[in-house]
Amino acid sequence: MSDQPAPAPLDAERMQAILDGSPFIHFCGMRVTALDPAAGSVVLAMELRPELERRQGTGQWHGGAIAGLIDTAGDAAVALGLGAVVPTINFRVDYLRPATTRHLTATATVRRAGRTVAVVDIDVEDAGGRLVAVGRGCYGAQPG
Amino acid sequence: MSDQPAPAPLDAERMQAILDGSPFIHFCGMRVTALDPAAGSVVLAMELRPELERRQGTGQWHGGAIAGLIDTAGDAAVALGLGAVVPTINFRVDYLRPATTRHLTATATVRRAGRTVAVVDIDVEDAGGRLVAVGRGCYGAQPG
Amino acid sequence: MSDQPAPAPLDAERMQAILDGSPFIHFCGMRVTALDPAAGSVVLAMELRPELERRQGTGQWHGGAIAGLIDTAGDAAVALGLGAVVPTINFRVDYLRPATTRHLTATATVRRAGRTVAVVDIDVEDAGGRLVAVGRGCYGAQPG
Amino acid sequence: MSDQPAPAPLDAERMQAILDGSPFIHFCGMRVTALDPAAGSVVLAMELRPELERRQGTGQWHGGAIAGLIDTAGDAAVALGLGAVVPTINFRVDYLRPATTRHLTATATVRRAGRTVAVVDIDVEDAGGRLVAVGRGCYGAQPG
Repeated sequence: MSDQPAPAPLDAERMQAILDGSPFIHFCGMRVTALDPAAGSVVLAMELRPELERRQGTGQWHGGAIAGLIDTAGDAAVALGLGAVVPTINFRVDYLRPATTRHLTATATVRRAGRTVAVVDIDVEDAGGRLVAVGRGCYGAQPG
Repeated sequence: MSDQPAPAPLDAERMQAILDGSPFIHFCGMRVTALDPAAGSVVLAMELRPELERRQGTGQWHGGAIAGLIDTAGDAAVALGLGAVVPTINFRVDYLRPATTRHLTATATVRRAGRTVAVVDIDVEDAGGRLVAVGRGCYGAQPG
Repeated sequence: MSDQPAPAPLDAERMQAILDGSPFIHFCGMRVTALDPAAGSVVLAMELRPELERRQGTGQWHGGAIAGLIDTAGDAAVALGLGAVVPTINFRVDYLRPATTRHLTATATVRRAGRTVAVVDIDVEDAGGRLVAVGRGCYGAQPG
Repeated sequence: MSDQPAPAPLDAERMQAILDGSPFIHFCGMRVTALDPAAGSVVLAMELRPELERRQGTGQWHGGAIAGLIDTAGDAAVALGLGAVVPTINFRVDYLRPATTRHLTATATVRRAGRTVAVVDIDVEDAGGRLVAVGRGCYGAQPG
């Protein structure tokens, strides 16, 4: 038993504030554009800045930036249910197409929130709605 | 049959020049510190800059930056044998410990270079030689 | 240009015949229960036999058998579009709950069929429709 | 505080007895051929039986059987330090070459045993010492 109050549910504003507390996430410019606590899903958007390009002048995202988006979106989806971010245990990313639009969105959906770990799927789409990458991550089930 | 000359082997200087052609990699400050064509291995180093921090003032790396390092180091190890970078097909990263030293190194070693894909292991260590993350990536076997 | 005729589309009967040509798949008793070429999806069912139990008398599936089901279902989903099975390059499985019902089903859906590789998601459910494991596989895009 | 005695260290005989308690592992015929508690490593061997063949009469292992070997070897390596088997959380397998020799061995080595999870690498070699598959698994850090 704990005297600590249950964490307040995370709305988009509070989630954004948590994300902005991370210099990496803030630098990448990730923004919460939707969240659905009942579905355990979060949508993050990101806009290409020059430092995230794969090759100069190509307008193509580097895969590392996409991996960072996947990691963060998955974490946010787990945080939605816990009220706080959790450590990433591992994740996998599959790159499906070159990502060449200025905007990308990542939709993260919790597949299973267990006692020890949570498993999340993350789909990354370009501005045209084409799937450019898919992620699957395993996160700790306790804030830390 | 092709009239194109075989690619010149990549030494550290040429590999660094290829990496620097990527704004993302250049921004992250990844540097080639060793490569061994016979072993199919490359070592990259990276130094923490404020934009790559997980939480402000903690000195802890964000996992997304570590994932970018893993992706890049694995790619470089495959490029060593091909003379050019290849597309990442997928990779997995497992985070083993918080990464809190200014310097990180990633050692990437090709486990198998097949006709279609190459599989690479990437170990990330902090400045004290502690293993902080491990990656395993699958890359295309043809430049593209 | 090739004089070879395009492969006939795989219906459930032909798919089952291909699967039955594999002693491993036949032994595990995997059966095609649905396929949808337009959606790139296949459903396989499997019934617990004693040799696939995790611990004697528990009625719980061993994870290795579930991994085999995931691998096979993903392969079948790719084969649906190609008319022949392809080599598995790699896959990931996450176990979400103990699998303790006699029947399991795996629904495999192609997320992306590219020139080099195809990426497939595989959901494994128990007889009560609970998600017990999820797989994500990367397969060669050419029969072989 | 617990009155339970610490688990006795697992030697090869006790490890084999635990494995044999699993009908799946027993059916596959996995045998402990070496273990090294200090290194956190275990070697399992497996011999092809007809039910594990990929295609009738080819002498080639089905990938599902190899995945089961990887899962089990990784679990055994974690068990070595805990005195009991643990649940598999997830694993990845990359197939590097067709496996066509009667005997396979899997060498599993713990990369990190943390409080929540353990991460293990598993190399699978054929009778000629060729690497045919590599696995990386994440296991619970508590028996269960």
